[in-house]
Amino acid sequence: MLNFEYNIPTRVYFGRGEVASLEQELKTKYKKVLIVTGSGSVKSNGIFDQVLAQVKKAGLGYNELSGIQPNPRLKSVYEGIQICRDNNIDLILGVGGGSVIDASKAIATGAEYDGDCWDFFINKASPERALDIGCVLTLAATGTEMNGNSVITREDTKRKLALCTPHIRPQFSILDPEYTFTVNRYHTAAGVVDIMAHIFEQYFSLTESCDIQDGIAEALLKVCIRYGPIVLESPRDYGVRSNIMWAGTLALNGLIGNGKEADWASHGIEHELSAIYDISHGAGLSIIIPNWMKHVLNDKTVSKIASYGVNVWSIDTKKDLMDIADEAINKTRDFFTSLGMPRSLKEVGIPKDMFKEMARNAINHYGKVGSFKKLNTQDIVDILNSAL
Amino acid sequence: MLNFEYNIPTRVYFGRGEVASLEQELKTKYKKVLIVTGSGSVKSNGIFDQVLAQVKKAGLGYNELSGIQPNPRLKSVYEGIQICRDNNIDLILGVGGGSVIDASKAIATGAEYDGDCWDFFINKASPERALDIGCVLTLAATGTEMNGNSVITREDTKRKLALCTPHIRPQFSILDPEYTFTVNRYHTAAGVVDIMAHIFEQYFSLTESCDIQDGIAEALLKVCIRYGPIVLESPRDYGVRSNIMWAGTLALNGLIGNGKEADWASHGIEHELSAIYDISHGAGLSIIIPNWMKHVLNDKTVSKIASYGVNVWSIDTKKDLMDIADEAINKTRDFFTSLGMPRSLKEVGIPKDMFKEMARNAINHYGKVGSFKKLNTQDIVDILNSAL
Repeated sequence: MLNFEYNIPTRVYFGRGEVASLEQELKTKYKKVLIVTGSGSVKSNGIFDQVLAQVKKAGLGYNELSGIQPNPRLKSVYEGIQICRDNNIDLILGVGGGSVIDASKAIATGAEYDGDCWDFFINKASPERALDIGCVLTLAATGTEMNGNSVITREDTKRKLALCTPHIRPQFSILDPEYTFTVNRYHTAAGVVDIMAHIFEQYFSLTESCDIQDGIAEALLKVCIRYGPIVLESPRDYGVRSNIMWAGTLALNGLIGNGKEADWASHGIEHELSAIYDISHGAGLSIIIPNWMKHVLNDKTVSKIASYGVNVWSIDTKKDLMDIADEAINKTRDFFTSLGMPRSLKEVGIPKDMFKEMARNAINHYGKVGSFKKLNTQDIVDILNSAL
Repeated sequence: MLNFEYNIPTRVYFGRGEVASLEQELKTKYKKVLIVTGSGSVKSNGIFDQVLAQVKKAGLGYNELSGIQPNPRLKSVYEGIQICRDNNIDLILGVGGGSVIDASKAIATGAEYDGDCWDFFINKASPERALDIGCVLTLAATGTEMNGNSVITREDTKRKLALCTPHIRPQFSILDPEYTFTVNRYHTAAGVVDIMAHIFEQYFSLTESCDIQDGIAEALLKVCIRYGPIVLESPRDYGVRSNIMWAGTLALNGLIGNGKEADWASHGIEHELSAIYDISHGAGLSIIIPNWMKHVLNDKTVSKIASYGVNVWSIDTKKDLMDIADEAINKTRDFFTSLGMPRSLKEVGIPKDMFKEMARNAINHYGKVGSFKKLNTQDIVDILNSAL
């Protein structure tokens, strides 16, 4: 286990009707809030009205920025920053899924920076502060509600990049599983894949003696595997939605990654795909993850992948380690498929034309891609080819 | 899953040499610290000197309160409060195990209260504030380093009672597994039992759909069962000590209890034992827990206890549920015994004389004892009799 700092100051209010906790969070600390939303579903399903009622009850003024797209765009972030500057905003309240909240975070730090906030994403500058951020989550997927990450897409240069800094950890997050009841089948499934992908990125590591982190990771994976198919059939089952929602948060709040070297290669590769082809992040991961697993499987990594097979998929321990690992990878791919997620790039209409450019972009941006197995440009091209 | 608020603001610095993080934590926020220690082991093993070097580096003045006993006494708390008042202390820094840190917490809240701080423990008053608290942990056991609990013993009335309030959550905790290398065999084993007991108290619950909490609880239990015997043989194994230390913290920081109704009957009963007979808390729990499990096993609880048997002890699922549960309880008792912990009250010299009084005290203080199965006075007497 490596040294780590565990510091998760976000206050989470979890459960039915917890939107009522908003008033208390808002009324003593803030004066003017920017409410950020997505494509309009929170308006049609009544969540926006519930949030607005709390904002008014707390006596706050507000502005609104709606229309944040999946793979949130930099231009929306700029728009939000301008609203903050023009209106003395002191809290950004994201009401939506990962895209809305990631955009809220980028706005929060951009509003407190004199330069171009894209600087933070291309490692040209580091944020020193941000406006406070609150979340009302409506999709279980990215874990952004309890971490310091934001992923933004810049359309003109086709780059999708991440900012990781404690300054953008939300002060509070409202997690009401009922708010995810109306998420459609496709996005629910993509969310489950995203959650599992976050766990894999931290679980598959060569750091030793991390039984706690790995045991928790396996428990979260088993919840996704148990409840993934059920939630698609029973989208209004509170217990099922609760477990998936809380799994999504714990999958990426530091709990399973602290003390370990994480990998993040699959995310690096997927970000290149969705930056250029604007596919759903979960769909991209569903294609990349099993192919990445196959590519990195070797004598050094086999025991970890086999442990995953035994502890998560209950594969017979008497088999050969390499066979267990292979079976675990196949089970992972088949599970994603069973949720209706794609297996190949062909299925989502992505050709091989830009594989080399994507691989080079990933290597250039991250410097190092992968740690479970370090990948070079050719490795990434090979993974993409195997995913065709 | 029940609604819950997840709010764990303690900053944890985990790993080798993390005492060096103290300077930064101390120097900007505090002026005068009260360092609280126990029987002197931190002075003989050099930990106190390392802490003191940080306090001096940060430019803080300090006072000292040493000699906190296991089952920390109210009179030491009063002594600490007096030192705070006489010296304008603004931070209590506990350097030791659970007793030292629990005493530090009681001092922190008593120093900010005009009345008698015992009021908080007998539910006569609620704390409204406390001095800041920092921890340097030297024993993996109670989880006090990341929660709002403190247990104090009042000698004259032979009561051992708990205070639970967010005001006494430490601002920061230093967890260096190397600081536990010199803990002796007996206290290491008692610590493992204490950690497992905390998990049981929250795991054994009738609240449904808590797969996340329960999966994490099972992962932590498996770490204790895997590493408990190993740490007794290899007390200076960093990986082993790391896993046990982090298990102890996560076992009682809210992670596995949030969203569930917890039981806490075994702790209620054990506190009566150690209040009167001053036995080690872990030893008392080692005796009580398996007898409590046997007593509460019935048609309503059997499936949960059997799940524990299957998921933690890998008992064959083909057996009858009641047999699985019985086997799980026996395995738990045998495991505690294998660590050198007692099985019976006789072994620690406790007679049956005061069973009725202890049972009445527990019921009177807590109002309700147990929730997995609600216990009355006779239930508690029966559990104590079966533990003789």
